[in-house]
Amino acid sequence: MPKGQPNVVPDDGLTTRQRRNRPLLAVHTGTGKGKSTAAFGLALRAWNQGWPVGVFQFVKSARWKVGEEHALRVLGASGEGGTVDWHKMGEGWSWIQRDAELGNEEAAREGWEQIKRDLAAETYGLYVLDEFAYPLHWGWVDTAEVVAVLRDRPGTQHVVITGRNAPPGLLDAADLVTEMTKVKHPMDAGQKGQRGIEW
Amino acid sequence: MPKGQPNVVPDDGLTTRQRRNRPLLAVHTGTGKGKSTAAFGLALRAWNQGWPVGVFQFVKSARWKVGEEHALRVLGASGEGGTVDWHKMGEGWSWIQRDAELGNEEAAREGWEQIKRDLAAETYGLYVLDEFAYPLHWGWVDTAEVVAVLRDRPGTQHVVITGRNAPPGLLDAADLVTEMTKVKHPMDAGQKGQRGIEW
Repeated sequence: MPKGQPNVVPDDGLTTRQRRNRPLLAVHTGTGKGKSTAAFGLALRAWNQGWPVGVFQFVKSARWKVGEEHALRVLGASGEGGTVDWHKMGEGWSWIQRDAELGNEEAAREGWEQIKRDLAAETYGLYVLDEFAYPLHWGWVDTAEVVAVLRDRPGTQHVVITGRNAPPGLLDAADLVTEMTKVKHPMDAGQKGQRGIEW
Repeated sequence: MPKGQPNVVPDDGLTTRQRRNRPLLAVHTGTGKGKSTAAFGLALRAWNQGWPVGVFQFVKSARWKVGEEHALRVLGASGEGGTVDWHKMGEGWSWIQRDAELGNEEAAREGWEQIKRDLAAETYGLYVLDEFAYPLHWGWVDTAEVVAVLRDRPGTQHVVITGRNAPPGLLDAADLVTEMTKVKHPMDAGQKGQRGIEW
């Protein structure tokens, strides 16, 4: 938990206040646990600031992250913080009529197209692009385009991208990169994932 | 995000169901970000399962984690999941009359004493012992005792401990250890922590 003073004061012509409010691009990568979980933890802070939060879940799975989704939906509806929109590729992007007919690659690209529209409209204060590193890694969505769009995004829109194998170009563009490393995992000792822990 | 089959099936005489429901001790350590954030993400899953969640925050700081605390308090009061108790060393443990007069070392030990009582009473389904690695590292609380108490805890009580410098004895005892590694951090580029991101 770093606090206090930064290591250097950059010669970028910005005031501390300007620098402080610069929108962040964060990437959580690596093979360990906690990449998405920490991103949803960030969403709690954004919600607490009253920011609209947009989650785009780039993975087709019914069971994973139901806890986080339920919690963030309850928070978003509580009226005590920001709103929360939760978009899931797996169950069909809400803005597309026949998402179920899309292949994974096409669906991932449709997700990115919507994110571009939302960034242009400054829809959210925080974007959680969960598992978005995968379609980038697989080349379904062009990393160079994503980096360019994020670099030029208007206003103060924070973005966190999760997933293994985040492409080098994305890491170069990110302000904050954390690698989650597995030191020890119960599955190594033969334990399967369990309710309340893995989902 | 590991899913699917475990790597080995242990010869421990347990059924998959028994093994699946074995209470976990998880440790999030390392110098990177996301240790606590991922622990609070786990708390969202526990809440979603309807488990009572107990947070013990072993750090004196007014500003950090206010977002997570607000979110978890709203969730705990929503009636849609489990309850949430949030205990803070910094503002005085709720069960102690004059916590403000305690030194850090004594306050940390008082926190551990309460955790022991709660474990014996099976008060919570998930314990978030936030920054508890520090009092262990500094020797304020005895790691061997913590390991023994956790090993013998009754029922199905999951525990997650966060903090840099988690002692080797704790890592040995843990079922799941994740190290968060800083790859790149905005403070390296002279940026100070910002609202909604760092707290």
